[in-house]
Amino acid sequence: MSGTDHKKAADWGGPQPVFLLVTPQMGENIGAAARAMWNFGLEHMRVVDPRDGWPNPKAVAMASGAARVLDQVVIADTTAEAIGDLNYVYATTARGRDLDNLILTPEQAMADARLRIGQGQKVGVLFGPERAGLENEDIIQANALISVPVNPGYASLNLAQCVLLVAYEWLQAKAPDVSADMDEPAAQATVEALGQRMIQELNRVDFFWPEDKAASMQQNLRNFLSRMPMTEKDMKLFHGVIGALVDDRGKRRTE
Amino acid sequence: MSGTDHKKAADWGGPQPVFLLVTPQMGENIGAAARAMWNFGLEHMRVVDPRDGWPNPKAVAMASGAARVLDQVVIADTTAEAIGDLNYVYATTARGRDLDNLILTPEQAMADARLRIGQGQKVGVLFGPERAGLENEDIIQANALISVPVNPGYASLNLAQCVLLVAYEWLQAKAPDVSADMDEPAAQATVEALGQRMIQELNRVDFFWPEDKAASMQQNLRNFLSRMPMTEKDMKLFHGVIGALVDDRGKRRTE
Repeated sequence: MSGTDHKKAADWGGPQPVFLLVTPQMGENIGAAARAMWNFGLEHMRVVDPRDGWPNPKAVAMASGAARVLDQVVIADTTAEAIGDLNYVYATTARGRDLDNLILTPEQAMADARLRIGQGQKVGVLFGPERAGLENEDIIQANALISVPVNPGYASLNLAQCVLLVAYEWLQAKAPDVSADMDEPAAQATVEALGQRMIQELNRVDFFWPEDKAASMQQNLRNFLSRMPMTEKDMKLFHGVIGALVDDRGKRRTE
Repeated sequence: MSGTDHKKAADWGGPQPVFLLVTPQMGENIGAAARAMWNFGLEHMRVVDPRDGWPNPKAVAMASGAARVLDQVVIADTTAEAIGDLNYVYATTARGRDLDNLILTPEQAMADARLRIGQGQKVGVLFGPERAGLENEDIIQANALISVPVNPGYASLNLAQCVLLVAYEWLQAKAPDVSADMDEPAAQATVEALGQRMIQELNRVDFFWPEDKAASMQQNLRNFLSRMPMTEKDMKLFHGVIGALVDDRGKRRTE
């Protein structure tokens, strides 16, 4: 990653939620979780009691390109220790629990996290080990649950996918306006001018016929144009097309 | 999956978007995409020209639990063939393109898809092959783009992750309660036919000039048409307009 990109990502960052992997088993999954996080600019990972110890070369190999996340990782012995400095903790859970915690979607949770972080709180999200998910002992230390709404007949989300969805929602919670690069939308006056030109040209070739339908045909044409999400560039293209067809006709006429 | 769960998932279903994998390479990725879809109750997959042919045992092995998706998969030779019956097509793309299509986030796109499907439209989402993503030739056949907002310094989403995020947003999007009285939306094949006719007519009047720009001018024209939310009625109007201008030219020629 270039220094510039680095800076860009860091600029968004400011304070971020910490993602905590609790007793993960496979190094590959730790690496995949790091990649999933970094895709959305999240870089603060903590790992509680990883089965295969730390450092883990398989995690590093899998995290290709997102080494930044693993370079900063904090390893802890217990969940309590890992979340000790945090003000608010969400626990991800696949299945319904017999606990009265507030249950949020990833979207709701990350919107809430943005708010809290904006208020200066330190926020974290707990993710359980691959197979079993978080234990109740971990969940009762959390302030709220995150549950991904899935097909009740099939929920096969793995650890990295769960991390991916929550990280995605973190960035979504202040998603940049991606449509901002679009071309200038056409002004209504430009669209109307195009309509009038088309009507004029089509009148010349007696397109609007029979006469008692001419008005509604012209209305349909103008309505068609104004319904379309056209840009000023499109207007030029359209004029070019009509001009080409019409000029050729003109040329033929004078030949 | 139990019969009850099955029924539950199917009940949500009703009409759904079709997910189209364009020239995917690894069978494993097709299987992983099927799982990602079925996590969110999506079951209609089409595959365009899979590198390793079809059926693909690696896809089946990877799709464990989501066999339902692969059992119903439709294989096509070309993107045009695969989307021919659809009314509105989104193309997922990682990088900025030099095309003026509407760019949506997965969230915006799936909210839009819910609306369209509620109005009776058939909707699809194109996903490109693993490394390169969709080619421009595929993108210009789409009506809108989907771009996942990611860390500009690191975007490593793979095919199944991209499918996962869009499928997740499909389920997230609430079905709007609309009963709009819209005209029949145009099928992609009709729009493409209109584009081809326009290109043919414009070629006759040497519109595509200079020669080294002809290909990109034609691409812009087809892209313009597929971006527009046109109805079958619009197609007739458009053909009428072109026919009027062109027939008149013919008449003048023979005068």
